[in-house]
Amino acid sequence: MAKKTAKMTYYFGKTKTEGRGAGKEILGGKGLNLAEMTGIGLPVPPGFTITTVVCDQYYKLGKKLPASLMDDVAKNIRTLERELKKGFGDAKNPLLVSVRSGAAVSMPGMMNTILNLGLTDVSVEGLATATSNRRFAYDAYRRLINMFGDVVMGIDHHHFEEAFDKIKKKYKAAEDTDVPEEGLVELVTAYKAVYKKHTRSAFPQNPIDQLRLAVEAVFGSWNTTRAVRYREVEGIRGLLGTAVNVQAMAYGNMGEDSGTGVAFTRNPSTGKNVFYGEFLINAQGEDVVAGIRTPQPVVEMRKWNKAVYKQLLEIKDILENHYRDMQDIEFTIEKGNLFMLQTRTGKRTGAAAVKIACDMVREKFIDEKEALLRIPADALTQLLLPSFTPAGKASADVLTQGLPASPGASVGYPAFTADEAVERTAKGEKVILVRKETSPEDVDGMHSAAGILTSTGGMTSHAAVVARGWGRCCVAGAGEVNINEKSRSFTVNGRKFTHKSLISIDGSTGEVMAGSVETSTPTLSGDFSKVMRWADKYRRLDVRTNADSPADAKRARDFGAQGIGLCRTEHMFFEGDRITAMREMILSETEKDRRKALKKLLPFQRKDFEGIFTAMKGLPVTIRLLDPPLHEFVPHDEKSQKELARTMGISPAVVKARVEQLHEFNPMLGHRGCRLSITYPEILEMQVTAIVEAVIRCKKKRINAIAEIMIPLIGTAAELKLLKGKVQETIDAVKARRKYTGKLNILIGTMIEIPRAALTADEVAEHAEFFSFGTNDLTQMTFGYSRDDINSFLPDYLSQEILPVDPFQSLDTTGVGQLVDMGVSKGRSVRKGLKVGICGEHGGDPASIQFCNEVGLDYVSCSPFRVPIARLAAAQAEISK
Amino acid sequence: MAKKTAKMTYYFGKTKTEGRGAGKEILGGKGLNLAEMTGIGLPVPPGFTITTVVCDQYYKLGKKLPASLMDDVAKNIRTLERELKKGFGDAKNPLLVSVRSGAAVSMPGMMNTILNLGLTDVSVEGLATATSNRRFAYDAYRRLINMFGDVVMGIDHHHFEEAFDKIKKKYKAAEDTDVPEEGLVELVTAYKAVYKKHTRSAFPQNPIDQLRLAVEAVFGSWNTTRAVRYREVEGIRGLLGTAVNVQAMAYGNMGEDSGTGVAFTRNPSTGKNVFYGEFLINAQGEDVVAGIRTPQPVVEMRKWNKAVYKQLLEIKDILENHYRDMQDIEFTIEKGNLFMLQTRTGKRTGAAAVKIACDMVREKFIDEKEALLRIPADALTQLLLPSFTPAGKASADVLTQGLPASPGASVGYPAFTADEAVERTAKGEKVILVRKETSPEDVDGMHSAAGILTSTGGMTSHAAVVARGWGRCCVAGAGEVNINEKSRSFTVNGRKFTHKSLISIDGSTGEVMAGSVETSTPTLSGDFSKVMRWADKYRRLDVRTNADSPADAKRARDFGAQGIGLCRTEHMFFEGDRITAMREMILSETEKDRRKALKKLLPFQRKDFEGIFTAMKGLPVTIRLLDPPLHEFVPHDEKSQKELARTMGISPAVVKARVEQLHEFNPMLGHRGCRLSITYPEILEMQVTAIVEAVIRCKKKRINAIAEIMIPLIGTAAELKLLKGKVQETIDAVKARRKYTGKLNILIGTMIEIPRAALTADEVAEHAEFFSFGTNDLTQMTFGYSRDDINSFLPDYLSQEILPVDPFQSLDTTGVGQLVDMGVSKGRSVRKGLKVGICGEHGGDPASIQFCNEVGLDYVSCSPFRVPIARLAAAQAEISK
Repeated sequence: MAKKTAKMTYYFGKTKTEGRGAGKEILGGKGLNLAEMTGIGLPVPPGFTITTVVCDQYYKLGKKLPASLMDDVAKNIRTLERELKKGFGDAKNPLLVSVRSGAAVSMPGMMNTILNLGLTDVSVEGLATATSNRRFAYDAYRRLINMFGDVVMGIDHHHFEEAFDKIKKKYKAAEDTDVPEEGLVELVTAYKAVYKKHTRSAFPQNPIDQLRLAVEAVFGSWNTTRAVRYREVEGIRGLLGTAVNVQAMAYGNMGEDSGTGVAFTRNPSTGKNVFYGEFLINAQGEDVVAGIRTPQPVVEMRKWNKAVYKQLLEIKDILENHYRDMQDIEFTIEKGNLFMLQTRTGKRTGAAAVKIACDMVREKFIDEKEALLRIPADALTQLLLPSFTPAGKASADVLTQGLPASPGASVGYPAFTADEAVERTAKGEKVILVRKETSPEDVDGMHSAAGILTSTGGMTSHAAVVARGWGRCCVAGAGEVNINEKSRSFTVNGRKFTHKSLISIDGSTGEVMAGSVETSTPTLSGDFSKVMRWADKYRRLDVRTNADSPADAKRARDFGAQGIGLCRTEHMFFEGDRITAMREMILSETEKDRRKALKKLLPFQRKDFEGIFTAMKGLPVTIRLLDPPLHEFVPHDEKSQKELARTMGISPAVVKARVEQLHEFNPMLGHRGCRLSITYPEILEMQVTAIVEAVIRCKKKRINAIAEIMIPLIGTAAELKLLKGKVQETIDAVKARRKYTGKLNILIGTMIEIPRAALTADEVAEHAEFFSFGTNDLTQMTFGYSRDDINSFLPDYLSQEILPVDPFQSLDTTGVGQLVDMGVSKGRSVRKGLKVGICGEHGGDPASIQFCNEVGLDYVSCSPFRVPIARLAAAQAEISK
Repeated sequence: MAKKTAKMTYYFGKTKTEGRGAGKEILGGKGLNLAEMTGIGLPVPPGFTITTVVCDQYYKLGKKLPASLMDDVAKNIRTLERELKKGFGDAKNPLLVSVRSGAAVSMPGMMNTILNLGLTDVSVEGLATATSNRRFAYDAYRRLINMFGDVVMGIDHHHFEEAFDKIKKKYKAAEDTDVPEEGLVELVTAYKAVYKKHTRSAFPQNPIDQLRLAVEAVFGSWNTTRAVRYREVEGIRGLLGTAVNVQAMAYGNMGEDSGTGVAFTRNPSTGKNVFYGEFLINAQGEDVVAGIRTPQPVVEMRKWNKAVYKQLLEIKDILENHYRDMQDIEFTIEKGNLFMLQTRTGKRTGAAAVKIACDMVREKFIDEKEALLRIPADALTQLLLPSFTPAGKASADVLTQGLPASPGASVGYPAFTADEAVERTAKGEKVILVRKETSPEDVDGMHSAAGILTSTGGMTSHAAVVARGWGRCCVAGAGEVNINEKSRSFTVNGRKFTHKSLISIDGSTGEVMAGSVETSTPTLSGDFSKVMRWADKYRRLDVRTNADSPADAKRARDFGAQGIGLCRTEHMFFEGDRITAMREMILSETEKDRRKALKKLLPFQRKDFEGIFTAMKGLPVTIRLLDPPLHEFVPHDEKSQKELARTMGISPAVVKARVEQLHEFNPMLGHRGCRLSITYPEILEMQVTAIVEAVIRCKKKRINAIAEIMIPLIGTAAELKLLKGKVQETIDAVKARRKYTGKLNILIGTMIEIPRAALTADEVAEHAEFFSFGTNDLTQMTFGYSRDDINSFLPDYLSQEILPVDPFQSLDTTGVGQLVDMGVSKGRSVRKGLKVGICGEHGGDPASIQFCNEVGLDYVSCSPFRVPIARLAAAQAEISK
């Protein structure tokens, strides 16, 4: 039986439209849209698509086109010629085409467009005749030779540039457009010489040869290193190859009756249902983009050509009806005739995404699930925090870029100490606290400031963590900012800024800008609440928050958090008297002295917990026992050390020696987390006592406090067994001491943040009532990356595409995810239904939430301002399952 | 059908010996040996063993003895009474027994011995009569009440102590032995009161009751927390329980015709085949151990009782013939009658182990495989490096303990700078270099010194790593040593030592001692070579070495290394001019300047590699590309920074700024390893160029250089793919430049030391021609332990048995091992037969080598001095498979 050959080309045009049922996989995205638009009767320059199947065959044949392809192509060209009454290579009225690649998914790295294909020494004169514009014809021809030479034949672009520069010099032309017709004719000759020199053959004078070479080049671009790597990184598999779109050219630059434009079917910035766009008379598409001439609002077309404008409005409705989404369209008017060149789903702001999705549900275009999938979860940040306006950003004077440590936008005058920030804010000034790094003593100043900028420290530095908790804008680790505290100024790349220089910082990008950049403050719409309600209806994952204070807890609860997934206790030790007591504890030489100091801390901790339980009443609060190395709590400068020594009545040398002793080469891998509780069990006892006493106090006030005690940094089951026993003993002891006989139902669980804990999760789960993945540390250890030091090589890793994304922002599902998956299944293998969550910062990242949903986590926990994002992302994950 | 009840007790004695075929699992180790000795006709005090099966039943019955057990016990007691013509509880000639636990494997934490069981108020007088020694009888009785009260009834020992103290005071007795007979009679009354007070019942006056309670106590001790924990940690599973041994007492303290002794059938120190031991006349076993009286050499027994001595010698031969191994025996002579109390395999030094194993093969006791299993691989260290003599250590004045950074023993005068060490050594003095920490500038001094002592830094500090490479003794991180370089002295816990104070350091234990402790220097025997030959015959694993210089390489080759598994290149940059060029490279701001500096380094590197290839000709040399963070190479003190600035003609501020910029919070997780090659590919290029040029030079001299290039710290396949490409390009470029057309066969592989690399080993293996597990880093990251900081909590972890052993010394097979296993199988799943080795320091640890053999590694690599150990351990792993 003869093998049936698959259809290799699909025509679209007035004559026939073949592609509508063929699907994206065969036609590519662009090809399908062209067929669709033609099919629903829109005016599209006709053409045809060579399928992805042919691309696959091309590689199977050892990079050869299938034998009959060019016959097929020739047939399509003939159909085109008939339909348009033009001839390919014709000396009077030549048919010119564009050639574009287009796979099923949009993919950078593949071949760009070739325009004006079909021009030869003969047909260029035909074009000149047909358009009565010889300059235009030669300009098109030189563009073809350049693009073809560059893209198809691999001639370096600068060779053409050099030739052009000579011509420009000769004609004393400043711009390309200043070169007269004869210059362009000369240029074509020069370009052809360049082409010949580098390819050792003349520029092809047969249009079909041009087309064949172009098709081969498109297919070749499917397997460039960059394209292959992109597919690897993005996990794009199972595609046959790229399609090739060959389409008749349409020109918007043929006179005052021609033009071109781009538009959105609704306002992409606000989402309002009004046609929105721009157009330019007598221009090509690239002129609109290049911004050389100022385009007019699309509504002005009414005055220029009412019929065309009406037609465009009709097409807008047809497209929205057809695609059931806001479209981004490109169109050209050639001598009064409208042609649609492209339609695609339009990009939009977060606010617009919410409004359009809700409107379209009302308009019955889509249902709730579809609406939820239409809103990029991350874009909700724009609805919750101030941001710089696009216009403001476009003209901003960017000084340097640090780390985007806490999102938001803020504008203010630099304050160089915390005290200064407090004072000046009190006087009504808006200030940005600018410090090398912040320390616990700076919290008041940080709270007063509109934003925080540090020159060292990473995404987990003190400044970054504290700022995120508050939703305060922060740029950290801006290494090029050199601060001189004494002179109240800083310099960036030689430019000096004082306490009187207004600056702007963008916590979402890390940019530091001179002057005041325009910001916009969001107001939450009814549509936002509606989207959140829908999200809650469809998601399976619970969403908790990471919060350390009653205020944060309340804010997160308002944002819809269903509990606290991570309540860090260390920040509680930094304020006022507490830090002194904490330091006394650390400097104690005996257990007895440590207990004495801890006794002072107990009432503070109890009060903190009581406040948080009250704010979260009825919802679970997961409290992590002390985690950071003790070195973080002691003073490092001589002055503070002396002060502490005086308070404690010991010699400054003793303080200094202890501080030095606590110094570690790699504190991230040092004496911290549960290791502290093993060596100083009295710290654990104090913390658990405070928790239990707070729970009992709440219960007595009829406040339903639900505490979960989380032991950090477990690496072995033996650690957890020992410490769980100590926690339980302490709970029992407090209950006995307080004569409380009711049930407290305090769960005792652990963080899984050490690779070994995930690898041995079956052993660990024997002693854990819940797991919470600390994916910040888990990522650090699985990759061997210190988050605070990664900036020295991460930029290279991202630019060389060794990493697709910063693994601290989005969970590495291949490696770290393997451990998470292993931890969940091993844990549940010994403890059925074990409650498992995530409290690393990935808990607020949509892609990571998708993964968490897949591997069966019970909840994600994230910073208060990301709770709405997580709710939406969780719903999307479940809907798209 | 009635269920057949298993036999519950096994008698051993003249009447009958039941236990010989029953096996260790049923009788326990001690019970089996007693049965064996009795069975082969040796004089053993008769008795019986209650089986481990009964222990199992005891627990199954809810901690109750099986109904018929005590009938069985009574029958055995009657047999004993008949055989010995004594009566249990008899008023004239009482039978007394000891009760001991004994499982199939020796296990600390279980019940100790109870002696003299059977004494009551009645039988104590019988014992007095029978021995004509009332003091002896009451001394035995008070010991029973004390032991029984403490061990069986759980009365705290100090309650008895207090009662004894009162009696001693009353009789003005300094020692227990000074208390007269009437005092002991009073003491018994007092002890009975203590017993009654704490147990609320009288001391049992029926011997059978005493025995029942003692048996229950032994069974109870099987499940104490400590015993359970011990079995968990040691992975002891599947045992039924402990046996109980009830044995007639024999007394060596019944007069001048009685005595007791311990002996080894061969010399346990040298292995020489001579009977070796000590005995004491009129004494109990514990007197020999306690050292109150000085025992005589066992050979002196000839003069005291020739017949007994002759009998003992015969027994010695019988035991060696029977057990085919050197035995450690205990015996007692009661009124001229010899009784054997115990025999067990004797502990021995490394030298003795080698000699005895070889002798026993010659004597045809055992075969080669058995001989190899008999030698603890680790003990070979004693044969290769100087060590302190046991006598020297016993009386040493230990000042403090640091980390055992590099084994060996050394004695010398402190030198406080490298220059001083060089100078004084040149003058013939033996010095120990005492530094806070060492740095690359110190290498000459380190090489001159007999040993190195540092007060900070861990097992991977500069001092430790360099010292291990040289086999130089080093104690690191001795935190209690306070060094004052200016005054040329240090203090330890208040004691001061100057450059004139002789000190001794033990690199195998970390001890720092005052004065000169006696050392012994090993000489390698013919037996050692024989053992190595046998080991090579039976092992499957290859053994390579970690060596960075021709001298190390040669030494390792002499020790039998089959290649270099890890040649670190960083140490090569520390000497003389090199470090200056290295620093210039690091301080360069442009790639061009870096290349200029690297050009200076190239000839040095090439020469290093040429030397190593020449030393290892015909054997593979795995070279790791630059690994440590650049910060390690720059000067940190102001003076050196200024010097460097002068050399480079730049400002000291620039040097300082760059040094600060290179500082990392967690350098272990920072910009190092392959991350350097990604950001500064020119470093990789220089190193690969040096390697390839060295290979070509060697080949031209007909030296077969086999290079393997190893890329460190790979975490993603993308890194390796990129860098492998760069390495290959460089190889090709050098070949072309040198016009070398032959094959070089340079393999390109990677270290697996990042958890993620193991997790994604299938992806990584696509680009790797070999894997080498860097288990130092892998352990650091899998556990989240910084090896340099672990000392702040490791001691607690070991003492609380959270970790069975330091995971940096012996591979954690549960966690880290899981990643190794995964790495091997995932790697080989895509690349069949992938060569896989290990180059972490675990490569020299016998237990870890066993694991490496199990998971199918091809080779282990370790420091030169551990090569023989690894060869033996590899053979043992394969033989015991």
